[in-house]
Amino acid sequence: MKKNILVGQSGGPTAVINASLYGVVTEGMNHLDEIEHVYGMVNGMEGFLKDDYMNLSEELTQKELELIKLTPAAYLGSCRYKLPKDLTAPSYPTVFRKLEALNIGYFFYIGGNDSMDTVSKLSRYGARIGSSIRFIGIPKTIDNDLMLTDHTPGFGSAARYVASTVREIALDASVYQQRAVTIVELMGRHAGWITASSVLARKYQGDNPLLIYLPETAFDFRSFAKDLSRALERQPNVVVCVSEGIADSSGRLICEYNDEARLDNFGHKMLTGCGKVLENFVHNHFGIKARSVELNVSQRCSALVSSAADIEEAALAGAFGVRAALSGASGQMVAFCRTCEEPYAMECSLVDVNQVCNREKPFPVQWIIENGTDISPDFLTYVLPLIQGEVKRPISQGLPVYAFRKP
Amino acid sequence: MKKNILVGQSGGPTAVINASLYGVVTEGMNHLDEIEHVYGMVNGMEGFLKDDYMNLSEELTQKELELIKLTPAAYLGSCRYKLPKDLTAPSYPTVFRKLEALNIGYFFYIGGNDSMDTVSKLSRYGARIGSSIRFIGIPKTIDNDLMLTDHTPGFGSAARYVASTVREIALDASVYQQRAVTIVELMGRHAGWITASSVLARKYQGDNPLLIYLPETAFDFRSFAKDLSRALERQPNVVVCVSEGIADSSGRLICEYNDEARLDNFGHKMLTGCGKVLENFVHNHFGIKARSVELNVSQRCSALVSSAADIEEAALAGAFGVRAALSGASGQMVAFCRTCEEPYAMECSLVDVNQVCNREKPFPVQWIIENGTDISPDFLTYVLPLIQGEVKRPISQGLPVYAFRKP
Repeated sequence: MKKNILVGQSGGPTAVINASLYGVVTEGMNHLDEIEHVYGMVNGMEGFLKDDYMNLSEELTQKELELIKLTPAAYLGSCRYKLPKDLTAPSYPTVFRKLEALNIGYFFYIGGNDSMDTVSKLSRYGARIGSSIRFIGIPKTIDNDLMLTDHTPGFGSAARYVASTVREIALDASVYQQRAVTIVELMGRHAGWITASSVLARKYQGDNPLLIYLPETAFDFRSFAKDLSRALERQPNVVVCVSEGIADSSGRLICEYNDEARLDNFGHKMLTGCGKVLENFVHNHFGIKARSVELNVSQRCSALVSSAADIEEAALAGAFGVRAALSGASGQMVAFCRTCEEPYAMECSLVDVNQVCNREKPFPVQWIIENGTDISPDFLTYVLPLIQGEVKRPISQGLPVYAFRKP
Repeated sequence: MKKNILVGQSGGPTAVINASLYGVVTEGMNHLDEIEHVYGMVNGMEGFLKDDYMNLSEELTQKELELIKLTPAAYLGSCRYKLPKDLTAPSYPTVFRKLEALNIGYFFYIGGNDSMDTVSKLSRYGARIGSSIRFIGIPKTIDNDLMLTDHTPGFGSAARYVASTVREIALDASVYQQRAVTIVELMGRHAGWITASSVLARKYQGDNPLLIYLPETAFDFRSFAKDLSRALERQPNVVVCVSEGIADSSGRLICEYNDEARLDNFGHKMLTGCGKVLENFVHNHFGIKARSVELNVSQRCSALVSSAADIEEAALAGAFGVRAALSGASGQMVAFCRTCEEPYAMECSLVDVNQVCNREKPFPVQWIIENGTDISPDFLTYVLPLIQGEVKRPISQGLPVYAFRKP
């Protein structure tokens, strides 16, 4: 008897989460002997619990699917919903009744480590009640902080966006002769992958950004003042890239030197403002022009310079997940395994989702050099293959065309 | 006897100020019967007064010139230098001695209304002393606020960047179900042209941004609360676009409800933070999630989605200026005159630089509709031709290649 697929998107948007959705839907439709429908949860588990879903295999044309593949954010909508820790909670029978009612055989959740927690819990509950539904996680996060995978879909495009934009900001910063410091605040609460990518912005050795600070190293204002003094001796315009999550050696976040922190639904601190704190510090300490630029949500939602490599790998992850589930896998996350460095080659594999959820992979300390102010060339070998390739995008009236669900 | 050209860039960077430089240099080199060298001031008048200039016609290859044409910011460097009001000040003989020493016959200054002030003063002083040097202004500003021209080079690319980016931010804002407001703060101290361009971000009628506020209309917090209430009844995710320079009916800037204002060299208020002020207002007044995004310097320096039409027109303005100067014009600015609306056609012309400098062209009030919360479709007819065309850009190691002066 044929079964149906249910796929959802969860957590923050990326430039390529829809490419993974494309991968799941198109691969599902390649197996019409085993799959009847591919359903999509609208707004992830939160929407699904309110019976909000759509029939993707029926409602979408191939042309629409191709457009979805190139559209940033999350076509199905997303959520930040966490299932109870206690597997005897009433949510679990509710979810499984809904899954059975839709004749779901294969469940795919595209997201980061919070979303892998959902996959882990559902697959453990399913095993407990002897359900035959297979649960697979498809990785997604611009932060590149998932365990057991070489990298995550979404990171390559974010890295490319950051590199391109910081390169432009460095050009902008260089036009005046006056000594001036530009602080660029980049995403990354605990992991410095995105901020490290700003090293790609350099057009030549010794170019801006002259200083790069990741959350993996304790930030110290006195060291920063010394580092910056030295940089200002080299050239009048200094660009400094910092992760939003940099903290001092006591663990106090630099943005809390401001005190605007709030909490999100997961109890994460909502960070803003370490760039502003440093801007004020530079202005007061050096008495020179300082400004801060927060690249903000564009890091995760901009498709202006999406990496074609990233899009193709994201689609591949979705398709591989479907094939794995059909072959019997469950409670696994699709991972990327780099099989060759030069030339770059990678293969998809499966890893235990329980080893991934609620854990974070920091930026390697051996790639942080110059007393925590620069990034090793080894990182370039790692990251360059992930930012390659131009996307040919449909344009209408001078602007990129994106897919969206009709309101 | 052959004369030399001197060209400089002044004021804030744009995506296309280098295309105008390209236009001046290449057109200058097309007239080798009259022109010997094309010199470039490094850092505008400020650098020139320190004898900092370079020989562009000798030092640049055609290939480098083509790359400069596509590079954002300001290849020659810029300045914010203002000549004294008093034409009897000693700066004037100094400048003219330097111009004569370099055998300059034609002077081109690429910039906004502050730069046109320089052209005006030099041409008036030149006339007073009977100098034969011809002074021409080449328009440049993302703000589109120069008088007597249909539009300015730089605006089309800024408008395209804002439209593309706000479209992505609106997709990002739509992924969650929870009621939330995103405030996008856009450039424009007194003129709303850039902010108005966010109307292009809508994918369909009734799409975000649902509310758009320009500095041409007095901002009122009570009206804003009512407008936003109505918008939140239509959909849970509301994107609001605001100019950095919005002010209340008494003229008090909304960003000053924060009190972080400082002054720049021209005595302009350095604005930041009206987005943050509104974010806090929404959070406190509605008790819902609010965030603010400041697109910041990328509006002026990003070349990720430069408009090819804008680049070509910017180059044309430079070339036209050279031909005009060779024909005897001085004390003029190159202007764009729209000769046909459908299909769009424009011609370059000359306007008296004294009528341009130190004045600003506001966004037309008749294009501001819905009680100051929306933009008329007539603006679309105006702006659409300016954002057309893709740029084929050289890529190396996955990133755009830009020209720069060796440090």
